[in-house]
Amino acid sequence: MSGKNIVIALDAMGGDNAPSEICAGALKAVEKYNDIEIVLTGDKEKIKSCGVDNPRIHIEHASEIIDPDEHPANAIRKKKNSSLRIAMEMVRRGDAQGCVSAGSTGAIVAGGVLVVGRLPGVDRPALGVPIPSIEKVSLMLDVGATVRCTPKNLLQFALMGELYSRKIMNVANPEIKLLSNGTEEIKGDDTVLGARELIEQYEKINFGGYIEGNEVVWGHADVIVCDGFNGNIALKLGEGIMQGLKSLLTDEVKKSFMAKAGMVLMAPVVKKLWKRFNYEQYGGSPLLGVNGAVIKAHGRSKSPAILSAVSVARNFIYEKVNDQLEIRNEG
Amino acid sequence: MSGKNIVIALDAMGGDNAPSEICAGALKAVEKYNDIEIVLTGDKEKIKSCGVDNPRIHIEHASEIIDPDEHPANAIRKKKNSSLRIAMEMVRRGDAQGCVSAGSTGAIVAGGVLVVGRLPGVDRPALGVPIPSIEKVSLMLDVGATVRCTPKNLLQFALMGELYSRKIMNVANPEIKLLSNGTEEIKGDDTVLGARELIEQYEKINFGGYIEGNEVVWGHADVIVCDGFNGNIALKLGEGIMQGLKSLLTDEVKKSFMAKAGMVLMAPVVKKLWKRFNYEQYGGSPLLGVNGAVIKAHGRSKSPAILSAVSVARNFIYEKVNDQLEIRNEG
Repeated sequence: MSGKNIVIALDAMGGDNAPSEICAGALKAVEKYNDIEIVLTGDKEKIKSCGVDNPRIHIEHASEIIDPDEHPANAIRKKKNSSLRIAMEMVRRGDAQGCVSAGSTGAIVAGGVLVVGRLPGVDRPALGVPIPSIEKVSLMLDVGATVRCTPKNLLQFALMGELYSRKIMNVANPEIKLLSNGTEEIKGDDTVLGARELIEQYEKINFGGYIEGNEVVWGHADVIVCDGFNGNIALKLGEGIMQGLKSLLTDEVKKSFMAKAGMVLMAPVVKKLWKRFNYEQYGGSPLLGVNGAVIKAHGRSKSPAILSAVSVARNFIYEKVNDQLEIRNEG
Repeated sequence: MSGKNIVIALDAMGGDNAPSEICAGALKAVEKYNDIEIVLTGDKEKIKSCGVDNPRIHIEHASEIIDPDEHPANAIRKKKNSSLRIAMEMVRRGDAQGCVSAGSTGAIVAGGVLVVGRLPGVDRPALGVPIPSIEKVSLMLDVGATVRCTPKNLLQFALMGELYSRKIMNVANPEIKLLSNGTEEIKGDDTVLGARELIEQYEKINFGGYIEGNEVVWGHADVIVCDGFNGNIALKLGEGIMQGLKSLLTDEVKKSFMAKAGMVLMAPVVKKLWKRFNYEQYGGSPLLGVNGAVIKAHGRSKSPAILSAVSVARNFIYEKVNDQLEIRNEG
C-alpha cells in the first residue's frame, strides 16, 4: 500500500448482498477515486471469486462472520477472526483510517467502542443518518448507538453533528435542534431541557431549540439531536410508513383498471418522490465519536450504496473531521 | 335533566371551529342517541346564536376561554370561568359523567388531573389515540399526558389500554406491546425493560413483547404502550409524513399534464387511502386514568368529529369502563 493513499477497510461479508455487491462497490470506488486503497476483509476465496483484480484492492482473510442475530458486544468480543472485527482492528492499529460495513448495526456500534475506541473527551458514540425531508437532507443523531442519554451526551452529539453537517454534508452554518414533544420551552423532559441549557452556552452552535416530529418531515433543521431510543423509533416509523403506503397503493391499484391506467401516467412523479424519500440513497451512516471513520452502509446495500458509503468514509478522512472536534470538559 | 340519561359536558369554545361546529356536533349527537343530554359550556349568547334548540341540549355560561398558547396548568388553575374548566367541574361534581373538548391538549390533561382527578390507584394519566394501520386500528398510549414514565406508569397504561381496546374498540383479546428500539429482549432501556417485567406478571394481559416503529404501521399490536415523549414524537412524525407527501404530490402533479390526468384516474384510490390513514376519522382520544370520561377531540374537528368524540364519551360511560379497571398496588 502506498503511504500517501487513504486506506479504507471494507467488511466484505456484511449485509444481505455480501460478498458480491460489496466487492463490486469496492471496484467502483477505486475506479472513482485515485487516492484510496481498499482492504476487503472476509473469506479470501469467496472474495477472489468476485473478481476484484485491482492494484489498489487488497484482501485480508477473515474466517468468521458476525450474524445479524448475535448479541452485538459478545460477537465483537468473541469472534476475533470475523470480517468486521478484523476491519476494525485495522483502524485501531492505524493500518486503515476508516472502515465500512453493511453488517449488523449493533456489532458496528459495539466494535466502534470496543475495538476502534472512543475519541478523547467523547463519552458515548452516536450513529447519524442523513434523512431526506421536503426542504433538504437533515442529519439525525443518535439513531441507535446510545439508547438513553444524559444532557452531556446530547451536547456532544450536537457538536459532532454540527461538524459532520458542515464538513461532509456541506451545510454552511447548520442549524441544530433537539427532538422534543413540542417546540415551546416548557416542553421536553429533564434530559432534553438539560441538553438545551448546555447547548445554549455554546456560541458557536447555531441552535434553534426544539423540533417536533412533524417538523422533521419538512426539514426544519439541519441537525436533529435525540437519544438512540427515540431516534431509532422515529427512523423505523418513517421507513415503515413509506413501505406501508407503497404496499397499500400497489394492492389498491391492482383492483381498478382506472387506477392502473392512472398509475402508469403518474409513474414518473411517484418514482421521483419515492427516490427522494428513500433515505438509503443518501450514503452511509456515520458512527460519530470513535477514533476513525466508521461508516455503516444499509444492510440491503448494492454496489452503488457501497460506493456511496466508501465515498463518505473517504471524505471523512480527507476532511480530517475527527481532528476538528472540540469537546470541552464540562456538563 | 332526566336522571336516567347520560350527561356529557361539551366545551363549546375549544378548537378551531368553535362554537359553530361544536354546537352542530351536539345537535347531531342528541339526534343520534336518545339516552344522552349535552351541556354546552361557553359564551351563552354565542352558543344560542348557533341554534341549539333541543330539550336535551343545555347551556352553562362560561365567560373565559383557554387559549392554546397558554401554559396548560396555569390556565386551568387561574381561569375558573373558562369553558373547559366549567365542563370539567361538572364532571368533578358528578353533574356530568363525561366531558369532551377540542381545545388545548395540555389544558385537557391538566384539567383531567387537577379538576376531574385521578382514579384511585392510578399514578399518572395517559392520553390514548386510535391510530389506523394497515391491518387494523390500534390504540397508542401515552401520546402526551405523561412525558417520562416509570415502569409502573407503563404497566398502568397497559391495563387501561387493554380495557379501552376491549370495551370501546371491541377487540376481543387485545394484544399489548411496548414501543421499543427493537423486538429482541436485549433491546429497550431500563424503563421499558422494567415495564416488560411487570406486565409479564399479569396473566390477564395478552402481552406480545416489544414493537418497533415500522411494525406500528402494519398494525402488529392492538395496544401500543409508550411514554408521552416517544408517543408524541411518533404521532406527530406520522401526521407530518402524511401531510408532507400530500403536499409534495400535489405540487409535483401540477407540473405535468400526464400526472394530472393520472391523478384524476387515481383519485378514488388516493382518497380512500388518505381517509383510511387520517387518524382524525377515528373518533376522540381518551384521557385514561381520570375519574370520568374525558375525551379530547382534534383541534380541527368539525361536527362529525364532535359527534364521534361524544359517541366515544357515551360508550365509555355506558360500558362503565372506569369501574372495571383493576390496578393492584405494586411495582
